[in-house]
Amino acid sequence: MLKDLRVYAHACSAVTHDRVAASKPQHAGRSAGAARVSACATLLVLTFALHAETGHDAWLRYAPLEGAALVRAQSEIPAVIVNLDNSPLAASANAESVRGLRGMIGRTLREEAAIPREGAIVIGTLDEIRQAMPQWNLQADLAPEGYWLKSMDSPGVHYTLIAASDPRGLLYGAAALLRKAAMGESVAALDEKSSPYAPVRWVNDWDNLDGSIERGYGGRSIFWDKLKAREDLTRVSEYGRLLASLGINGCSINNVNANPRILSPEMLPEIARIAAAFRPWGVRTAIAIDFGSPKTIGGLDTFDPLDEKVAAWWKTTFDAIYAAIPDLAGVVLKADSEGRVGPSTYGRTHADAANVVARALKPHGGILLYRGFVYDHHMDWQNLKNDRGRAAWDNFQPLDGKFDDNVIIQIKHGPIDFQVREPASPLFGALEHTNQAIELQITQEYFGQAHHTVFLVPMWKTALDFDMHAAGSTPTPVKALIAGKTFHRPLGGFVGVSNIGLDDDWSGNQLSQANLYGYGRLAWNPDLTSRQIAAEWTRLTFGADPKVDETIASIQLSSWRTYENYTGPLGLQTLTDIVGNHYGVNVEASERNGWGQWHRADEKGVGMDRTVATGTGYIGQYRPAVAKVYESLQTCPDDLLLFLHHVPYAYRLHSGKTVIQYIYDSHYEGAAAVEQYVQQWKTLRGLVDERRYKEILAQLEYQAGQAEVWRDAVNTWFHRESHIDDTAGRVGHYPGRVEAEAMTLDGYAVRDITPFEDASGGQAVACAARGGSCSATTKFSGAPGWYSLRVQYFDQTSGVSHYRVWVGKQLIDEWDADMQLPRAIRLDSTSSTRRLIPGIALRPGDEIRIEGRPGGNEQAALDYIEIVK
Amino acid sequence: MLKDLRVYAHACSAVTHDRVAASKPQHAGRSAGAARVSACATLLVLTFALHAETGHDAWLRYAPLEGAALVRAQSEIPAVIVNLDNSPLAASANAESVRGLRGMIGRTLREEAAIPREGAIVIGTLDEIRQAMPQWNLQADLAPEGYWLKSMDSPGVHYTLIAASDPRGLLYGAAALLRKAAMGESVAALDEKSSPYAPVRWVNDWDNLDGSIERGYGGRSIFWDKLKAREDLTRVSEYGRLLASLGINGCSINNVNANPRILSPEMLPEIARIAAAFRPWGVRTAIAIDFGSPKTIGGLDTFDPLDEKVAAWWKTTFDAIYAAIPDLAGVVLKADSEGRVGPSTYGRTHADAANVVARALKPHGGILLYRGFVYDHHMDWQNLKNDRGRAAWDNFQPLDGKFDDNVIIQIKHGPIDFQVREPASPLFGALEHTNQAIELQITQEYFGQAHHTVFLVPMWKTALDFDMHAAGSTPTPVKALIAGKTFHRPLGGFVGVSNIGLDDDWSGNQLSQANLYGYGRLAWNPDLTSRQIAAEWTRLTFGADPKVDETIASIQLSSWRTYENYTGPLGLQTLTDIVGNHYGVNVEASERNGWGQWHRADEKGVGMDRTVATGTGYIGQYRPAVAKVYESLQTCPDDLLLFLHHVPYAYRLHSGKTVIQYIYDSHYEGAAAVEQYVQQWKTLRGLVDERRYKEILAQLEYQAGQAEVWRDAVNTWFHRESHIDDTAGRVGHYPGRVEAEAMTLDGYAVRDITPFEDASGGQAVACAARGGSCSATTKFSGAPGWYSLRVQYFDQTSGVSHYRVWVGKQLIDEWDADMQLPRAIRLDSTSSTRRLIPGIALRPGDEIRIEGRPGGNEQAALDYIEIVK
Repeated sequence: MLKDLRVYAHACSAVTHDRVAASKPQHAGRSAGAARVSACATLLVLTFALHAETGHDAWLRYAPLEGAALVRAQSEIPAVIVNLDNSPLAASANAESVRGLRGMIGRTLREEAAIPREGAIVIGTLDEIRQAMPQWNLQADLAPEGYWLKSMDSPGVHYTLIAASDPRGLLYGAAALLRKAAMGESVAALDEKSSPYAPVRWVNDWDNLDGSIERGYGGRSIFWDKLKAREDLTRVSEYGRLLASLGINGCSINNVNANPRILSPEMLPEIARIAAAFRPWGVRTAIAIDFGSPKTIGGLDTFDPLDEKVAAWWKTTFDAIYAAIPDLAGVVLKADSEGRVGPSTYGRTHADAANVVARALKPHGGILLYRGFVYDHHMDWQNLKNDRGRAAWDNFQPLDGKFDDNVIIQIKHGPIDFQVREPASPLFGALEHTNQAIELQITQEYFGQAHHTVFLVPMWKTALDFDMHAAGSTPTPVKALIAGKTFHRPLGGFVGVSNIGLDDDWSGNQLSQANLYGYGRLAWNPDLTSRQIAAEWTRLTFGADPKVDETIASIQLSSWRTYENYTGPLGLQTLTDIVGNHYGVNVEASERNGWGQWHRADEKGVGMDRTVATGTGYIGQYRPAVAKVYESLQTCPDDLLLFLHHVPYAYRLHSGKTVIQYIYDSHYEGAAAVEQYVQQWKTLRGLVDERRYKEILAQLEYQAGQAEVWRDAVNTWFHRESHIDDTAGRVGHYPGRVEAEAMTLDGYAVRDITPFEDASGGQAVACAARGGSCSATTKFSGAPGWYSLRVQYFDQTSGVSHYRVWVGKQLIDEWDADMQLPRAIRLDSTSSTRRLIPGIALRPGDEIRIEGRPGGNEQAALDYIEIVK
Repeated sequence: MLKDLRVYAHACSAVTHDRVAASKPQHAGRSAGAARVSACATLLVLTFALHAETGHDAWLRYAPLEGAALVRAQSEIPAVIVNLDNSPLAASANAESVRGLRGMIGRTLREEAAIPREGAIVIGTLDEIRQAMPQWNLQADLAPEGYWLKSMDSPGVHYTLIAASDPRGLLYGAAALLRKAAMGESVAALDEKSSPYAPVRWVNDWDNLDGSIERGYGGRSIFWDKLKAREDLTRVSEYGRLLASLGINGCSINNVNANPRILSPEMLPEIARIAAAFRPWGVRTAIAIDFGSPKTIGGLDTFDPLDEKVAAWWKTTFDAIYAAIPDLAGVVLKADSEGRVGPSTYGRTHADAANVVARALKPHGGILLYRGFVYDHHMDWQNLKNDRGRAAWDNFQPLDGKFDDNVIIQIKHGPIDFQVREPASPLFGALEHTNQAIELQITQEYFGQAHHTVFLVPMWKTALDFDMHAAGSTPTPVKALIAGKTFHRPLGGFVGVSNIGLDDDWSGNQLSQANLYGYGRLAWNPDLTSRQIAAEWTRLTFGADPKVDETIASIQLSSWRTYENYTGPLGLQTLTDIVGNHYGVNVEASERNGWGQWHRADEKGVGMDRTVATGTGYIGQYRPAVAKVYESLQTCPDDLLLFLHHVPYAYRLHSGKTVIQYIYDSHYEGAAAVEQYVQQWKTLRGLVDERRYKEILAQLEYQAGQAEVWRDAVNTWFHRESHIDDTAGRVGHYPGRVEAEAMTLDGYAVRDITPFEDASGGQAVACAARGGSCSATTKFSGAPGWYSLRVQYFDQTSGVSHYRVWVGKQLIDEWDADMQLPRAIRLDSTSSTRRLIPGIALRPGDEIRIEGRPGGNEQAALDYIEIVK
């Protein structure tokens, strides 16, 4: 049998020997000998994958350089590497450098203990290098965690310094040097200082202790299984390595909707094991906690933050945790939100709640990230003054200055919840005496989950670069505010809700890795452009071909706009089932309930009036310079129009187009763009390794079908509601489409679909014949020629139906409906799936027959077929 | 989980439904719906492999055409396909055409019952086409199984005919049309008639009924498991499809060293199931039988071929077999050879034996392939007149004319046994009144098995094209003789000992598939050049890149000479362990025993004197024109010198070089050539799909190490025997080599190796420390610089040892010795394996330490290290 061995070492410990090879491979050519090793001072990391690229190595593939890049790198990289620092982090930096350069230039650097008289890479803090080589007279003012890549010529000898003020900086410096080499850049004459934009650069992994992941689409948890840390934490080490390469320095390892059990004593060794796996990579572990823990776990009769017993319990609890994990980064706390208990139980404030925990952390250097995502989800939807968008500001602005210095308010980038388009949260501009961090969602909850390609960096940059006008005439972009630069706060930064799991490719698909990469790069330096980040990621992940770079960049950089175009333009927010799977189309799901994601679309108009003048007053939460722009229809950007204003459908945008026509047009544009992505991707055949090429092609083809479902559903809904026709005549008219309910049915029964817009014509056909089959037949009456057939069917999770397509007596295609779509239980837009059958020669009179054979509880349902050129 | 689904349909039967998908894949992009289908008249074959190329599709990948080739094919291929023939073979031709064209041009042809008024591919026998379209007035004289690809223009409409005289020809015609399309050739103006060179084009699969395969290196049997036909015979159908694409029309499905049980009644349904799987592909099933069956199976007291009871038993037995399998092709019989019983038991002749079986087959149209591989393996090696090479002629020439017309003598291409260089068997020229077939060994028994790359087509062509001067001045190449052309025999042709098994890639490695392809192509048309066959195979298997074609052709076309150069040049035959695994080096294994593969090397000279004048007289078995050339040292070709003559080491070849120096030089050339293959292959990175690229690279790297083992072993042996130095000073002097026995040993003990030439210096070191480890250390004293380290170690099958290499305190490499080499039990050249560690920076005084940790019964043994630039 072929093996795909990966061997991975991270910790500085006694030499161990642990054979991985379980069975002997049969063939010589396929021998993949490897064993696990971790040896102090000699950290060796071997990777051998005889098989295809799986995505497992992500952007740290260290693929061999070729041609001129290889020749230059081999001439520029010295033979020796010296590590002057004895920390585990420097050992990781050293080992990763050796591993990476071995992969890229095919040479194993000599690890030496002292700076030799020949060229060398020298890893060390400034103090250590100064002590070893006083004659270099090195001078630099390096920020914490920052690094300095510096070429240094002694007479006749060339050194490459990876200098830093602390060991974590050495790790990041080594990653930067490796990135340069992998990008094909020269490393001969370096003088580059870099330091992180903000001190807090965390990821939050919403992993449940049972091993599932809230909003996780990349497989099960790498941390947890059955209420314990997983026995094999290799993937945690590997994740730490990925994070370290980006400069991420903290990771919260359990769901922010925290299981109180995380603070029970038996969990402490579990957390400690995970922290140990992360530690060599400079990633400090954090945990999410439940505010009711003093009662549920501690056995107290209260969790009132002002109760001394409660404060003492928090202190005792964290003293014990820090005794086991002295470098715990801190805690994430979600309180009084979406059913979580909080200080409101005792009439206390968020500041009371935050401070009681923060004070228990303080002696140990821990920090508390207190989530600003607090709102009432039982609001009266009929009260037009109610507005969930106001909640963060209303809850936290009045408390500005009441939080301890080791508390950070963690604020989602928009006022609602990671929708496809939101303005930056007004709270960013409202806290002057409180630390803050921006919460960005890397995992694509509202962005097609693992199935749609959306590169989120341009969206995040829109928020980060948005000027809140919070300090007079000084520009105060969100990034400066959250980094603490504007109001000189000691703490602040970035929190990303991560998107990884046990899947081979981490994120459930290959392209979503770019969002983790982009998040990390922005957290280090938010001034990087989206194009720069896309170029880096593509080159590191897929290699140096310029066509690959251009094609992937073209897809990635347009993908947010494309997704917005087909799921909710003009600030409508993602028109998905917000009370369900957050995936399929359901235009009305946001209405007539207390969740407050209202778009207020009715037969006359659409949009949430958030003006001060006539609406909820939300716009008034912004500083005047911002509020003025948003308040006026004349200046409000089209992209946010319906988020901030209610207008009639015939209202004309700055572009001159009516709102309703823009909705129609954008949905057609979005769906067409994804079709174009498929064609663009196909030009990369042979330029991208075969496995990933095929996986991404299949994903884009699925997305193209799903974009059409969205296009038709949203347009159908607005057409029916507004009674205004599409000026281009497309909505409601689908050339070549034959509704299943209009076909000759044998066994199939017509079903009304809910919501009606989720099926073409509001209906589908379903087959109740368990063990048998049904068929739907139509006669082709077009001109003879080559056609593609598109069969729109429903792939539910409740079974595996089998479909066959016949033209006359000829079976031309068949497939199983065996995808696992997100909670695809019903016949709706989530389960609606397209099968493309290209290259069919049709002649007038041909009978086209779809045969469906239900499997499990699935009904082999059909929406329509399309016969297109 | 990702799935690699293959769905495959072959039989014309009732519509069945059998879901393949066992579990739901988790991700949309990875959905691979498929199901098994077989439907009469509508044969649909779907293949969907989301993963990398495994080699499973071999040369029938039908990969999408690209660019101009696609545009042309789409314009040339009509929309309709009509099959006028109702045989299962024509149904296969039709289905394969639809499948192949769908893969290549992305279109599904319309299957119609009658010739339409628009362009169409028309499949039918000449009679059927004439009847359907009398106005075409088709005239052709097509040989059995031949085809005619013919473009036909009716007014305004263009047809492409696949015409034949019989259904099997339709299958081969369809394969030819698909091959043309896959090769990127135009199919617009066809007028190509082709018929097979010989009627018998068989493969022999030496599969044992227990599922093992004699001389099989591609996994276990696709036919048998535990004395029954395998439950799942999908692979047999797939093999049938591969064979049909080459025009192979018969397959013997069990080892020629036949288990008598094959003729027991309970095996009949098993054979019938296999025959059914082959049948749609025109491959007729044959069986190998044991001549003692009348006694062992039939319960008679004799198997004397002249006994009437015996003749009656054979008749009854085959009547029963043909009742179940009316199209059984016939029988293969090995008698009186290598321990098999035969007619000699009763003093009868091979003709008696052959005819008694042939007469039982005759009424059913069956044929008997009687193996000419009959020799005495207990010959007195001390008698210089003894010669195994004479045996085939001596046994069969006197019987010429005594065999029935449905008997074919199956003659190995050379007089010995598939050695690296043999002259064509003289028996080919000696049978004028007897049918004959050439037996070619596709499986690489003496050619490195699954581990060395040797493309055998050039060798086979050397035999097939050799003129036996058997009919006066008319050229009588072997191919003409075996095809029956020279002496107007009714039967004859080709038998190939196949190389396939259950492995994904069929043959245990990717490149060996080319030998099966090449055999089949030669059997159809032996006038094809090796270059043509290599080009076809490469293009069909790896795509159209000219660099891939040139590189693979360059490797393949030189690979036989290369292998000969390092394993036994000048007609020495493969200097392997002929009484052992037929794989490792053992120069003396062929001597001092009765097997007769003697090369007679001693301290004075080398070679078998087979002259008439002074030797065994073997040369006198050839017709005079051939014998004259071979008998004289002046005219005997260098390549066969030592096969035909005994000469002193200082004897000068036609080239002027001495024999001993040629032996030295050729071994260095051979080893260097394989090193060059590795470099050539590396230039294909990114041009060949990743998985196969890596597999082939690993195989070539192993082969390069093994070629060095051969080089040193053979040269060492001849150097020691001849006492003549290599004029180039290489033999015995290995720059950079440090013998393990000369290193500082800790725990390792020195062992003498047998045969001595199998280890450098005749010794190795082995570690007896079960559960512990041993080490061997040396100090580097060369100039500072970048080096490669080669560690020559022993990878036995009896365990998995672990090796580590340290330079000073730095661990620079480690691996498991976990290959499965052929019967690699001892410390010898078979288990001797090279680990290459490139890119090591060494400085004078560096301590290089190899640590070995035995696993199982393996001893983590070492031969030497080499430190090279």
